Amino acid sequence: MAYSVTPYKVSGDVDYQKLIKEFGLKPIDKGILNRLIKFTKESHYMLRREIFIAHRDLNKVLDEYEKGNPFFLYTGRGPSGATHLGHLIPWIFTKWLYDKFKVDFWFQITDDEKFLFNKGLSLEQANQFAHENALDLIALGFRPGSTKIIIDSEAAGTMYPLAIKVAKRVTFSIVKSVFGFQNETNIGSIFYTSMQAVPAFLPSVLKGRPMPCLIPHGIDQDPHFRVTRDILPKLGYLKPASIQNSFFPSLTDSNKMSASLPETAIFTTDSPEQVKKKIQNALTGGQDTLAKQKQMGGNPAVCKVFKYYYFLFEQSDVQLNKRMESCKQGKLMCGDCKKELINRINSFLSNHQKKREEARKLLPKYLFKR
Amino acid sequence: MAYSVTPYKVSGDVDYQKLIKEFGLKPIDKGILNRLIKFTKESHYMLRREIFIAHRDLNKVLDEYEKGNPFFLYTGRGPSGATHLGHLIPWIFTKWLYDKFKVDFWFQITDDEKFLFNKGLSLEQANQFAHENALDLIALGFRPGSTKIIIDSEAAGTMYPLAIKVAKRVTFSIVKSVFGFQNETNIGSIFYTSMQAVPAFLPSVLKGRPMPCLIPHGIDQDPHFRVTRDILPKLGYLKPASIQNSFFPSLTDSNKMSASLPETAIFTTDSPEQVKKKIQNALTGGQDTLAKQKQMGGNPAVCKVFKYYYFLFEQSDVQLNKRMESCKQGKLMCGDCKKELINRINSFLSNHQKKREEARKLLPKYLFKR
Repeated sequence: MAYSVTPYKVSGDVDYQKLIKEFGLKPIDKGILNRLIKFTKESHYMLRREIFIAHRDLNKVLDEYEKGNPFFLYTGRGPSGATHLGHLIPWIFTKWLYDKFKVDFWFQITDDEKFLFNKGLSLEQANQFAHENALDLIALGFRPGSTKIIIDSEAAGTMYPLAIKVAKRVTFSIVKSVFGFQNETNIGSIFYTSMQAVPAFLPSVLKGRPMPCLIPHGIDQDPHFRVTRDILPKLGYLKPASIQNSFFPSLTDSNKMSASLPETAIFTTDSPEQVKKKIQNALTGGQDTLAKQKQMGGNPAVCKVFKYYYFLFEQSDVQLNKRMESCKQGKLMCGDCKKELINRINSFLSNHQKKREEARKLLPKYLFKR
Repeated sequence: MAYSVTPYKVSGDVDYQKLIKEFGLKPIDKGILNRLIKFTKESHYMLRREIFIAHRDLNKVLDEYEKGNPFFLYTGRGPSGATHLGHLIPWIFTKWLYDKFKVDFWFQITDDEKFLFNKGLSLEQANQFAHENALDLIALGFRPGSTKIIIDSEAAGTMYPLAIKVAKRVTFSIVKSVFGFQNETNIGSIFYTSMQAVPAFLPSVLKGRPMPCLIPHGIDQDPHFRVTRDILPKLGYLKPASIQNSFFPSLTDSNKMSASLPETAIFTTDSPEQVKKKIQNALTGGQDTLAKQKQMGGNPAVCKVFKYYYFLFEQSDVQLNKRMESCKQGKLMCGDCKKELINRINSFLSNHQKKREEARKLLPKYLFKR
């Protein structure tokens, strides 16, 4: 089946193994898994389950870390709407790295990008989403001081002079081939990748020495960081390393979740009733009738409810396997499985929403200021 | 003879009448001249002599001024080197408008542009030139408070969020056709015209209402302001009006003066000895021998020394005509004419350089801060 993955559109049924080859990424293999366990004393389920599926130069940043030269973490968010559970995947994983390696973390919120690429979105709206999205990050437990949130339109005084140093070395030909831009693309969008490059070397600029950088991110963002990796060494900085996650599934079809289609995703601000309704309507691998399901079993491989357990709501492999087997054997009915998931999501969100509100008054402590 | 005028290259013998038509400008005619005299009670030699040769919508800003809605002035400088006398032409004329109309003045220094378009120039060098060039502006007598100097790399915190609002409405096709950009043009240069648009509406943003803007500038900058004029009404601001000057002549050939060829121009920081040497080597319309000159007279039409009197150093039309006639009649020898010019330039520069040094401590009062 045809698919397409760019930072600006993901469609079709993504063949990740093919995509890894196309993008020139390295798969997360046993070697790198074991090395991470050596450092963290823990096997993270997102690595074991190939939710994080690929990387660039992860070994190099670990080499440097071993030599006493710690990396900093960098990831981000394009604020085109409310935060959904899919957005949390790389942030939760980043939080794990942040805690285990005890390193600094830069979180970029690209309100300029979302304004430039979304016809109907004003910069003021994108900036408002930026502030709302930041609360979801803080709610995950990142600490001020070691966490810097950098909102492009607010940090442009620092970012633009650095971005043009990248931009001077990137031609239209390059962004045309990397992002598929056309002559009708606006000149802000054409320039934009330079802004996304900045957090990968801003800490080096501030510290006055080249620092290793590790970027956990959704695989669709890789084209930006390919450009960043090409340019930074020419400016005297290190190529950032990266680790890519696959897409959190939509509740309704095979595409990535989308903030523009509310029924495809659970948002962090959804009410218990909204969660209930969305999960009840989710696509499953169940049979047409209860009798048939008891007889033939369900198909977890195509079930969105099962994917939700897999990605976030059942972190024990033993329990996850039990659930899968029960389903296949016709012992676990979709209604019960959904009910349990609704409980788990609502329990997660109840806690998250409380911390999210507490984050409002804390936000200024996290915002980057020169 | 072939010529080419873009913001990035001026070459050949410019046919201004043809250029005015090509660019779609209006010539400075008797009507607009008389109207300006009505307001200013003065006929400025740069208008009479067609040093300022064309405009866009000058009548409209005067209409608004009459209704009690004053315009602000905006011009700028691309800091790729030291300031030469040619740069002062639009600034001196702007100073006259500033004094006569008692309006605010915004002066943009585009260190980002010069960095992006000049391969060998670092942003730090361009920024250093920006600070030096600003001294030349202040030396002309502009007052703090009503004069804001805005250096792009330093004011990007305010400018970038406004520039992207312009950029979202400008495609690569447009800048390709307006500036002649290619696929190999860097993405910072492609974006840049958005930054040059900002001072044309920044005062409106700050005041919270659309304000008329008048831009005196070298005619080569018109392509930028064509783009600006197209976009600003779409953002709810007024089309800026403009008035264009022709190029101050090179001392050595028919092209525009150039900061990259020191022998073609007098710089504001030149010593009396440097001025003497440059003027003595200037191209004149004199004959091969003194005897021949006495007999046949000189040709002021091709004489660079005469052009210097015409553009800046003889503001009395009566005296300028006398000088021209004396030359044509073989009464005025090139040596004497050059000697007088050297005196006038050095007298001007001696005063300018004093004020320029005094400006160093005043600069912070002029720099734009949000």
